[in-house]
Amino acid sequence: MERFSLFILLATLFSATYCHSSSVERHGGLPLPIHLLRPNSGFGGELPKGLSCNSWRLAVETNNLRYWKTVPAECENYVGHYMLGLHYRQDSKYVTLEAAKYAKSIKLTGDGKDIWVFDIDETSLSDLPYYATHGFGHFYVPNFFTSLYDLGAKPYNSTAFNAWVDTGKAPALPETLKLYKHLKALGFKVVYITGREENRRDITRKNLHAVGYKNWEKLLLKQPSDSKKTATMFKSEKRAMLVKQGYRIWGNIGDQWSDILGTDIGGKTFKLPDPMYYIS
Amino acid sequence: MERFSLFILLATLFSATYCHSSSVERHGGLPLPIHLLRPNSGFGGELPKGLSCNSWRLAVETNNLRYWKTVPAECENYVGHYMLGLHYRQDSKYVTLEAAKYAKSIKLTGDGKDIWVFDIDETSLSDLPYYATHGFGHFYVPNFFTSLYDLGAKPYNSTAFNAWVDTGKAPALPETLKLYKHLKALGFKVVYITGREENRRDITRKNLHAVGYKNWEKLLLKQPSDSKKTATMFKSEKRAMLVKQGYRIWGNIGDQWSDILGTDIGGKTFKLPDPMYYIS
Repeated sequence: MERFSLFILLATLFSATYCHSSSVERHGGLPLPIHLLRPNSGFGGELPKGLSCNSWRLAVETNNLRYWKTVPAECENYVGHYMLGLHYRQDSKYVTLEAAKYAKSIKLTGDGKDIWVFDIDETSLSDLPYYATHGFGHFYVPNFFTSLYDLGAKPYNSTAFNAWVDTGKAPALPETLKLYKHLKALGFKVVYITGREENRRDITRKNLHAVGYKNWEKLLLKQPSDSKKTATMFKSEKRAMLVKQGYRIWGNIGDQWSDILGTDIGGKTFKLPDPMYYIS
Repeated sequence: MERFSLFILLATLFSATYCHSSSVERHGGLPLPIHLLRPNSGFGGELPKGLSCNSWRLAVETNNLRYWKTVPAECENYVGHYMLGLHYRQDSKYVTLEAAKYAKSIKLTGDGKDIWVFDIDETSLSDLPYYATHGFGHFYVPNFFTSLYDLGAKPYNSTAFNAWVDTGKAPALPETLKLYKHLKALGFKVVYITGREENRRDITRKNLHAVGYKNWEKLLLKQPSDSKKTATMFKSEKRAMLVKQGYRIWGNIGDQWSDILGTDIGGKTFKLPDPMYYIS
C-alpha cells in the first residue's frame, strides 16, 4: 500500500511529461522502432559502473542476477534491438535445436504417458508485438488509472497486458512451434503449464490453436487458490501432479528459470532467452 | 581405444602440417595473439547452420548445450578474443558483484560454520595464460607422444596441462579474489572443492597462497577413489559431508554447471563464464 502511494506521487510527477508517448504507432512490418521500456526517469535497475548491457544480459540468462524488477535504464534500447533483431531468434533456435536433438535420442514406450512440458508466454507464444509497440509493457497508458497501475512493478498483471492477451493474437515463437511439431511427430504429448489464470483458458486455447499448436494433453492454468504461489512453487506442484498421474516428463522448456527449477523438473530442461522480465 | 586409434591416424596426417605451430612465443603483456583452440582440421563441435558463436556461447553458459567436447571450429577465434578481451572480465565481474551483494545480506552466527564454496580452475585461479599461449590446451605439442595424447578430448588431464598446474603460476581471477577478500571480511570461511587430484595439493596450496588466497577452512581434492565420479557427483558428496559436519553453505561459485548442480548446492549459486571447456 505504501508502494501504491509512491506510484501516485510518481504518476503525478510524470504523467504530464510522458502521457503523450502512449500513442501507439502502427507499422507495416519489422523492424519496429525501439520504444524505451520505460521513460528515462530514474526507474530501472542499475548497471554497475563500467559493465555492459551484454554482461547484464548474460547475468540474467545464467540466473546469476535474480529478482530484478526492470531492465537497467541504459539497456532498454539494447534489449529492444536484441529482441527485435536476429539475435534473439538465433539464441532461441540454438535452444530448440538442442531440445529436438535430445528428444530424438529418447525411446518412447507408446503408452501415451511420455510428455514434454511447455510454458506459454515468451515460450510457445510471443508477446513481442505487445512489448514492441507498448514500450515493452512498462509504460502503456490507456487511461490515467491504468497509468498509475502500470507504474508499479507488476508488468505481468497489468490491465494493458491482459487486454493484449485477450485479443488472442499472440504469434507463435517460430522456433518453439517447430519444436512442438517435431515432438508431436516423435510421439510426445504436450502439456502446457502457464502463469496465465483460469479465466483466460478460452482465449489461450484459441490463440494456441490459431497459430499452429493444434492439440495437447493438458493446459494447466493458475487457479484463484494459486494466486499467492511463486511460479516455481505453482509449476512444481503441477509437475508433481503429472508424475503422480503416471506421466514421464522428458523435457521441459520455458523462458524463465522458474519454469525449469524446483522439483520434478523433467529429464532435461531448456531455457529460452528472455531479457525483458523476471518471474520468480 | 577405438578413439585412440583414430587420434593416431589423425596425428599422423596432421602432425607434419601443424607441429610448427607448437613453438611457444613469449609476449610482454596482453593482448596476446589469438591461438586457435585447435588446428583448422575438422575437429570441433559443429555450429548449426546460420547460427552465431554468440548464440553458441549463450547456449553453453545457460546449460542448454551440455556434454560438448570442443568449441566449434568456427568459434575458436571468437572464444580467444572473448577470453583475452574485456568481455570475459566484465561478465565475471557481474557475477562476483551479485555474489558480494548477496553475501552482505546474510546475517552470520559467528560460530565459524558459515562457509562459501569455491571451485579452483577458472574460478579462483585462471589458467588463461596456459590456454592463451598453448592454443587453449588442445594442441600443445611438447613431443610427439604428448601430441597424440592431446589430440584426444581430454584437455583437463593432459600432461601439458598438468605441467602448467605444477608450475604453480596460475594467476588469480581478479574478480574472484576480490570476492574472496570481501567474504573473509564479512566473516565467511572458505572451502575449496576442486577436480584437481590429491597429488597436487601442495602446489595448489602454494599457488593459491601466492596470489592472495591466504587461508581457508578446507581444500578438498579428488582422491584416487573419486576418479570415476563425475564432477557433479564428487562435489555433491563433498558438500553433503560439509553439511553433515555442521557447516552452512551460504554460497557456491564455479565456472562449470557441475560445480553448482547436484545436491546441497548451497543457499545461492553463482556461475562464472567459461566457454573454453565443459566438465560434467
